Amino acid sequence: MAPKSSIFYNAHHSPIGAFASFTLGAKGARGGLGIELPQPANHNVYIGLQSVDGEFIDMLPFYAGAGQDDPAARFQVEQVADEGIKEARTTVATPKLRAFHDSEISRELLACTDEWRAGDLVVRIISPVTPLPDPSISVVGAIKLAVLPAILVEVEVDNRINSDARKAIFGYVGADPYSAMRRLDDTMPGYAGVGQGTQTAIVAQSNDVGSALGFSVDDILAIDNPDNCKFGLGSTGLLTAIAAPGQISKFRFAVCFYRGGCVTAGLATSYLYTRYFQDIEEVASYALDHFEQLRVMAAGSDMRFAPAHLSQDQRWMLAHSVRSYYGSTQLLDSDGDPLWVVNEGEYRMMNTFDLTVDQLFFEMMLNPWTVRNVLDQFVERYSYEDDVTEPGSDAHHPGGMSFTHDMGIGNVFSRPGYSSYEKFGLRGCFSHMTHEQLVNWVLCATVYVEGTGDTNWCDRHLGVLQECLKSMVNRDDYRAEARNGVMSLESTRTSGGAEITTYDSLDESLGQARSNTYLAVKCWAAYVALHHILHKYGLGEVAAVAHRQAKLCAATIIAAARDDGQLPALLEGNHPSRIIPAIEGLIFPLHTGCSGILGTEGEFAQLAEVLRKHLRAVLIPGVCLFDDGGWKLSSTAKNSWLSKIYLCQHVARKVLNVNGDEVTKSADGAHVQWLQDEANGYWAWSDQMVAGVAMASRYYPRGVTSCLWLNEG
Amino acid sequence: MAPKSSIFYNAHHSPIGAFASFTLGAKGARGGLGIELPQPANHNVYIGLQSVDGEFIDMLPFYAGAGQDDPAARFQVEQVADEGIKEARTTVATPKLRAFHDSEISRELLACTDEWRAGDLVVRIISPVTPLPDPSISVVGAIKLAVLPAILVEVEVDNRINSDARKAIFGYVGADPYSAMRRLDDTMPGYAGVGQGTQTAIVAQSNDVGSALGFSVDDILAIDNPDNCKFGLGSTGLLTAIAAPGQISKFRFAVCFYRGGCVTAGLATSYLYTRYFQDIEEVASYALDHFEQLRVMAAGSDMRFAPAHLSQDQRWMLAHSVRSYYGSTQLLDSDGDPLWVVNEGEYRMMNTFDLTVDQLFFEMMLNPWTVRNVLDQFVERYSYEDDVTEPGSDAHHPGGMSFTHDMGIGNVFSRPGYSSYEKFGLRGCFSHMTHEQLVNWVLCATVYVEGTGDTNWCDRHLGVLQECLKSMVNRDDYRAEARNGVMSLESTRTSGGAEITTYDSLDESLGQARSNTYLAVKCWAAYVALHHILHKYGLGEVAAVAHRQAKLCAATIIAAARDDGQLPALLEGNHPSRIIPAIEGLIFPLHTGCSGILGTEGEFAQLAEVLRKHLRAVLIPGVCLFDDGGWKLSSTAKNSWLSKIYLCQHVARKVLNVNGDEVTKSADGAHVQWLQDEANGYWAWSDQMVAGVAMASRYYPRGVTSCLWLNEG
Repeated sequence: MAPKSSIFYNAHHSPIGAFASFTLGAKGARGGLGIELPQPANHNVYIGLQSVDGEFIDMLPFYAGAGQDDPAARFQVEQVADEGIKEARTTVATPKLRAFHDSEISRELLACTDEWRAGDLVVRIISPVTPLPDPSISVVGAIKLAVLPAILVEVEVDNRINSDARKAIFGYVGADPYSAMRRLDDTMPGYAGVGQGTQTAIVAQSNDVGSALGFSVDDILAIDNPDNCKFGLGSTGLLTAIAAPGQISKFRFAVCFYRGGCVTAGLATSYLYTRYFQDIEEVASYALDHFEQLRVMAAGSDMRFAPAHLSQDQRWMLAHSVRSYYGSTQLLDSDGDPLWVVNEGEYRMMNTFDLTVDQLFFEMMLNPWTVRNVLDQFVERYSYEDDVTEPGSDAHHPGGMSFTHDMGIGNVFSRPGYSSYEKFGLRGCFSHMTHEQLVNWVLCATVYVEGTGDTNWCDRHLGVLQECLKSMVNRDDYRAEARNGVMSLESTRTSGGAEITTYDSLDESLGQARSNTYLAVKCWAAYVALHHILHKYGLGEVAAVAHRQAKLCAATIIAAARDDGQLPALLEGNHPSRIIPAIEGLIFPLHTGCSGILGTEGEFAQLAEVLRKHLRAVLIPGVCLFDDGGWKLSSTAKNSWLSKIYLCQHVARKVLNVNGDEVTKSADGAHVQWLQDEANGYWAWSDQMVAGVAMASRYYPRGVTSCLWLNEG
Repeated sequence: MAPKSSIFYNAHHSPIGAFASFTLGAKGARGGLGIELPQPANHNVYIGLQSVDGEFIDMLPFYAGAGQDDPAARFQVEQVADEGIKEARTTVATPKLRAFHDSEISRELLACTDEWRAGDLVVRIISPVTPLPDPSISVVGAIKLAVLPAILVEVEVDNRINSDARKAIFGYVGADPYSAMRRLDDTMPGYAGVGQGTQTAIVAQSNDVGSALGFSVDDILAIDNPDNCKFGLGSTGLLTAIAAPGQISKFRFAVCFYRGGCVTAGLATSYLYTRYFQDIEEVASYALDHFEQLRVMAAGSDMRFAPAHLSQDQRWMLAHSVRSYYGSTQLLDSDGDPLWVVNEGEYRMMNTFDLTVDQLFFEMMLNPWTVRNVLDQFVERYSYEDDVTEPGSDAHHPGGMSFTHDMGIGNVFSRPGYSSYEKFGLRGCFSHMTHEQLVNWVLCATVYVEGTGDTNWCDRHLGVLQECLKSMVNRDDYRAEARNGVMSLESTRTSGGAEITTYDSLDESLGQARSNTYLAVKCWAAYVALHHILHKYGLGEVAAVAHRQAKLCAATIIAAARDDGQLPALLEGNHPSRIIPAIEGLIFPLHTGCSGILGTEGEFAQLAEVLRKHLRAVLIPGVCLFDDGGWKLSSTAKNSWLSKIYLCQHVARKVLNVNGDEVTKSADGAHVQWLQDEANGYWAWSDQMVAGVAMASRYYPRGVTSCLWLNEG
């Protein structure tokens, strides 16, 4: 059965840090204006243009019932309409909704602009992709523009062939359970707007747009007394623009979000944008006042994120994943300090550390201070000390500092020192990720320091880096002579269970932390980065420890290579699994100032060579390729994660110089197909694909690893 | 088909002025903790007690799937359990949920206490019914206690026969779309609590209660490592109390609500309780600290609202309706001033004036300042001036002051001078209620002044009262000589349509305002009250106008009586409908200091006699009685409204001295049956009953007209 791909997939259209999304693209009432939701808002969105004959409003299919019409029935309706035109024109007939045919609709998705064309209608939904200034040190104007919790919509009507005016409509039926729909005209003289309570709104200037509430769009289109547009009980809010005859008209709308007051429990915080905008009315007027500036900025970002060296498939995945990332971002104000949170898509876990380390590269490109902000949160509130144990033994040995898996879930900060995710006494999903998160802190910190040159911060955290090194070494083996650079002891936080990795839903090929090849290479990268940075500080002794561990680790990995070039997934035993993410950790030397070590003359050239051979050996059908050419992260699991694939594709090309269709063209084709499959498309960008079906980690931010592709030009 | 009544009806358990409800009673996931909702929260509520054998948690049926078990299957399960006890006891088996049989459960509903008994379990849900002090002039302690956004739950376990401890559980799966469940132990040392985000929580002191989160109750009951109770991802929050063997144990819980920040649009306001409680944690600790005081207050109110002169049916309807009233109440803070709102049940319209005038008597009993507060809001923001027209004519004549139908809907205040409800150019539902709301202001104001002796307020509003009189007279007829005391002109706000009354969903027997007998008697009562008050102020001339209008009005009504004693529903034409609410307006003289006028020696004895005859003539099967004995407000409509029935029953007995089973016993029996019908019971107290089926105005506050029965002792 051939997969059904379509342009009718949901995409996020999100402000930065507002944990909000105008999700749109899937047919039916499956998009909408959502704040803090783990899925699309699932309400009707009405966007359409009156037909030339005036009898219909031709609609984009974003409302219940759209696109489910029998095409034959639709034809009959048109016949009837044709026969009735004369009468209708004289009795001020109410135009009826009808969905455009799929074949009449085209779409182009860029990082900022999502453009829909249908008939004489063009709808451009414009979201920001722009550096977020550090609110602690930046000027207000720049911050306001970046944190503005609104996105823009430009509706263009080509009415040149027509001698009558035509209505363009834009509206919605809000899904908030707590408050009613309203017209913002009442509180914003000079504007026309519809919204729900204090939280969402679509607003335009009222010189060319009018607003109305009603029980349905049909209700509103049938209003004959204009005063009845002001009816307050309607659950449907609709803006109507009149496109003059004989010309092209453009109408501008701001789609706005606002949540005031304290929004989180556990730790009380508010949205940082509430510093600058007192209510959604201020958001709307600011957005419309700065429409042109924001549009130009968006056009620039569209170009930046679609460079010539990337294929169409790559550009599309990059744009789509960046959108999903922003939909999960939340910039909070904690007692006057900025607090950056990326929520974990459908799970809404806050600053899940194994996502942070992947999203790192995107944040380093745009706003490195958010990396620092999250690292500081981990140190201050979400670090802990443990002991370690050998599997099968009760004896405790010194462990050290590590960090929690996350900081909470769904606007609830977890208690200090503990994540919301990690449970005790387990060996699989929901167990602790102590070693991996420790490595993640080291990697994020060293990438941050290398990328920013923020020596002040590094000075202050030199102690933490050394603690982390000690903690890593302690997890290798409590006997110095037994160390091989790879994790072999379990945190006592597991209460006799076993640590896992971010790949929690995969089998032990990727899910088990101890002796895991994926984690080993990341450990090696962390040791390398620690050596580099500690050496710079003249801390020869500890730098040497890091260096020795890096060498031990590399040697252990190299020694595990089999004759066919493949590395086993686990460095212990004789595990049958083969995993692509063995190469994942190779990304870090490029970003921690150590890229030279992997070159042919570099200290770790042999490790690179072993991993190159491994990749070539596993990237074949039946091992780590699906039948459709998509990448299969583990040879023993059907569950494959796009964020990690994107990263490993980059490593393959950029670090290992492994190219070819199986790395890029045919793989990307399959991955695009997965995301555009009609069943998956509801969830915008999703990470965990089980044989191409989005089964978990949907509506997810992690795909911005695709930003690494920008470095391949 | 006999109606199915049951104890499993939803009832509100609501704080005062928090627009919040712990709705409970209907089987399944059809109750729960809701804030600002137009219906129950519809989530699982888990309340149960471990069985003596330890194998099960016997549950009240407030979760999905409860009560749908096949009794035979349940028996088999018990058999299996019996056989397995020995093994289970030794292997620490996880107890399984099972619902109590219906026959094991009993319930007693009082105004404050809703007590459930099942097996060895007693659950008392305790809500406040207490005067709400005026926050502008009262001491903080008294206000805090009254506005505390929490209700109490006492769980009693009789474990005397058992030598093992047993678990009692209480928890829920929150329905808020924006935030996750959490444990309040994290933020409240010394307490155990589960909650959702910042908004809802159930909290106890942690000396005898523990908390846990999990994906399900079964999940939580299966936890073996206590640290895993702290899992953060669970959508189910559960408190567990351990009832010691050989004794009766009591456990206390606070069910808390909190919404901080600005909660309304159109006019920015916050909950007044946020002045005193910074977050839900403060609410919880205050509620538990004051548990005994609140419990004693509630016991007092239970007695006050169940006096000996009322039947069981009457007491039950009174308690049930008072609960639904409080569920819709919302005490807001508008720039430092208190602002009282009663939301309109499932419609959530704010301070719908034709509800205010009925809820008036309840508020006058408990907190008359809320009446004043609403009257002031109507004058300051929701009054307007109009002209009037004769039906069929375009000529405008002077109208005058009147008031809007409501002040907004669902946390959205409508624009000044306009309601959310009223549309233009209509003759039925959604048309204007100009004359009725004008009369309602006069009646509320005169009842307030008479009931409180607040002469300061009256002094300040003397001008408004005179404006209202002028406006009423202008609506009678623009030609002085043509006036008959009854409305005959339409507001220009109707734009050529026709005014309606609060009975908007009935036919013209009650829905049409002009010449309506129901409205005429209310107008008469308003004129009488205006005469009384203006006369007191020595304003002889205007008092005389009011007096003359009252006499004209009475004469018009009296003249309309037919030979059989029946009054037609409309005083014009020869309308076939007969309506009980012709007598409704007779309630007001009792509360405006004019009760004497209806006595046998009184000025309007003849009017009373005509209405007495009318009531006797229509209160017969086939006219204004349903087959089941329930009251049928209009002979030509199946839609009958309980709030109005309660009021008219009181008028019949108290004013007209009409008694008998058809007035009280058999009627009450039918009305109770309507409310307890399984289909209707989901909606707690509902107003509009179409042949006994709750079809509209459900989950509704207006039933507190039943409080008038307290005056019959």
